[in-house]
Amino acid sequence: MENIFNSMLSSLKEKGLYRGDFKYLNSEQASKVKINNKEVILLGSNNYLGLCNDIRLKEAVIDTVNKYGFGSGGSRLTTGSYDLHRKLEEKIAHFKGVEASLVFSTGYMANVGIISSLCDRKWVIFSDRSNHASIIDGCLLSGAKLVRYKHCDMDDLERKIRENKGKYNLIVTDGVFSMDGDVAPLPNIIKLAKKYEIVTMVDDAHGVGILGENGSGTAKYFKLSDQIDIQMGTLSKAIGSIGGYVAGKKYFIDYFRNIARSFIFSTALPPAAIAASIKAIEIIEKDKFRRKHLLKMADWFKNKLIEAGFQVTRTITPIIPVIVGDSKNTVKLSESLLEEGIYVPAIRPPTVPSGTSRLRISLMATHTYDDLRYVIDVIKFHGKRLGIIEG
Amino acid sequence: MENIFNSMLSSLKEKGLYRGDFKYLNSEQASKVKINNKEVILLGSNNYLGLCNDIRLKEAVIDTVNKYGFGSGGSRLTTGSYDLHRKLEEKIAHFKGVEASLVFSTGYMANVGIISSLCDRKWVIFSDRSNHASIIDGCLLSGAKLVRYKHCDMDDLERKIRENKGKYNLIVTDGVFSMDGDVAPLPNIIKLAKKYEIVTMVDDAHGVGILGENGSGTAKYFKLSDQIDIQMGTLSKAIGSIGGYVAGKKYFIDYFRNIARSFIFSTALPPAAIAASIKAIEIIEKDKFRRKHLLKMADWFKNKLIEAGFQVTRTITPIIPVIVGDSKNTVKLSESLLEEGIYVPAIRPPTVPSGTSRLRISLMATHTYDDLRYVIDVIKFHGKRLGIIEG
Repeated sequence: MENIFNSMLSSLKEKGLYRGDFKYLNSEQASKVKINNKEVILLGSNNYLGLCNDIRLKEAVIDTVNKYGFGSGGSRLTTGSYDLHRKLEEKIAHFKGVEASLVFSTGYMANVGIISSLCDRKWVIFSDRSNHASIIDGCLLSGAKLVRYKHCDMDDLERKIRENKGKYNLIVTDGVFSMDGDVAPLPNIIKLAKKYEIVTMVDDAHGVGILGENGSGTAKYFKLSDQIDIQMGTLSKAIGSIGGYVAGKKYFIDYFRNIARSFIFSTALPPAAIAASIKAIEIIEKDKFRRKHLLKMADWFKNKLIEAGFQVTRTITPIIPVIVGDSKNTVKLSESLLEEGIYVPAIRPPTVPSGTSRLRISLMATHTYDDLRYVIDVIKFHGKRLGIIEG
Repeated sequence: MENIFNSMLSSLKEKGLYRGDFKYLNSEQASKVKINNKEVILLGSNNYLGLCNDIRLKEAVIDTVNKYGFGSGGSRLTTGSYDLHRKLEEKIAHFKGVEASLVFSTGYMANVGIISSLCDRKWVIFSDRSNHASIIDGCLLSGAKLVRYKHCDMDDLERKIRENKGKYNLIVTDGVFSMDGDVAPLPNIIKLAKKYEIVTMVDDAHGVGILGENGSGTAKYFKLSDQIDIQMGTLSKAIGSIGGYVAGKKYFIDYFRNIARSFIFSTALPPAAIAASIKAIEIIEKDKFRRKHLLKMADWFKNKLIEAGFQVTRTITPIIPVIVGDSKNTVKLSESLLEEGIYVPAIRPPTVPSGTSRLRISLMATHTYDDLRYVIDVIKFHGKRLGIIEG
């Protein structure tokens, strides 16, 4: 048995796909962090708004731990529901502009639970090729026919709908794609969904807090909040806590609450985690400046990279990936930057398609232009040295 | 679309299987809690040792939030690993008496990730009929052939192994069964596994903290810690926090770290949650009295219920389910108890087999004999009134 596993690990190592030691942080998730007690600029975090370490979230967590302890002690349907869960679910529904919502312990579990309880063998699921892994796992678990369409390609989607449409159908897409930073063409997706009478679902893990008038995400950005049947999102990125949710019509939410196995058969999130999410959404609703500043800085930074000759994805968000291509070269660039005091993880297959390994740079509202000017100088230097841009 | 969902919900209601409003707690998960601001005895919690609301866990969480903020900000392989994660993983490995461990965001995700990355279509999985839903979901996701054997029935297991054995094989079982409180016959399972060269996996969600010389669970209870290939467990029950883990040989752990999708594609647990788990394991290792007291009290309580004529499962743990049978009658008993100031959730299909609906009573180390004497008086009264025991 041992031999089988060791040979699989060796094969990963040969391909440059082995995931080596973790990078252990000795500090909070801020724009600068300590790794091995050395301070570095953090450039790959999902803590886009800097709320993970915001003093208001810390206070909300501490107050809640004093009152409620830590662990929830049970699943939501037994002993693990607290008044705070109800408050958060009402808050999310209001924030997203829908009737109701339900919180899962993680975003992965939300996707797996929603899709596997909604769909079965009678369903066909049309899924963007770049959708998150948890969507794929939900599709596989459902037993539905999975049809993947080319990334954001509406012609391909319509062709595949015509060829594969079944009795029941679902189109599922990320709102903001986590490894590209680009945005799904929701208006066109809605048009096709209406034309062919298909249920729609958006995973807005990376759009919430960033896009839309009130920061509620991609649906709001396109003014389509009431047009999407199922809105899923996470509480662990811009919201600075942990968890996932589904938001939509009451009958959907009541159904998921009764049927979704990853909801029913899992311990509820600690009240303190729930309190952090409530506080974060309050901040996001009030503080437009934070996301506007972040988007402006991201745009500036993206253009600097493009000017320098880097291949950057078509992003409009704080996710600004630099495509390197080769996995080993990507790791070399990441390691060179770390030596210069900049931590940005190398992303390789299977997280991204083969031949598109990248540095997944992402900015936080708490970065400074000074930090970023330094980053640009260093990444240009090593980009040239490693032959990623012309020297 | 709406009609389909509403008719499914109506059908659940007709069968007494609809899950109504959540019971929202207004207080911490203690032996007495507030529901709608009324104090009741809590009798269905997984907070077996009372650590969810232990002052030492609260302090560990608060200190950690002050230093590390709340959200982890990224997946373990990108920006979400902290020195505390390493400390906890080393602690779990030592506690379980194995080489290494890996923490997942939830127990559900640990089971789904372990099984779906270990097994594929070439595998046959032998699974106890009463195993937790997350094990089943992991098996389904893996694509392996799933063979379910009768609950704890070693003759049936051996017969099914002979009939179904494939190139690669796994026996997976709960250590302590969550809805019965009984313990898997690990010595016999190990014997069969050796005879037929089969990989073994134990989900000890409900054994950890309760059984074994050092409280490390069912494997230790049977002195078989080094004989089980893969030990899975949760941090959300006796340990009083949130999360799941896998523990075993280094090559297994390195493999899961590289391959398990529910590990790779999910935000790491907040450092504060990790700190709570570290503190809880420290307490469990030192404080034998707490679990001995709990087991003694549980044995006393179980015998009182049996004397009163209730059908109780063959439990040796603080999980002491009272089998009622009919779903609607189970809900009635649960509701009657709640009116008398005792909250114990009714458990119905699909969580338990059809016709075996039950009150899943579980005790905490922080319950008092006075509380439990009151419970026995009340449950006897309503058990007679509802015809569950003879009057």
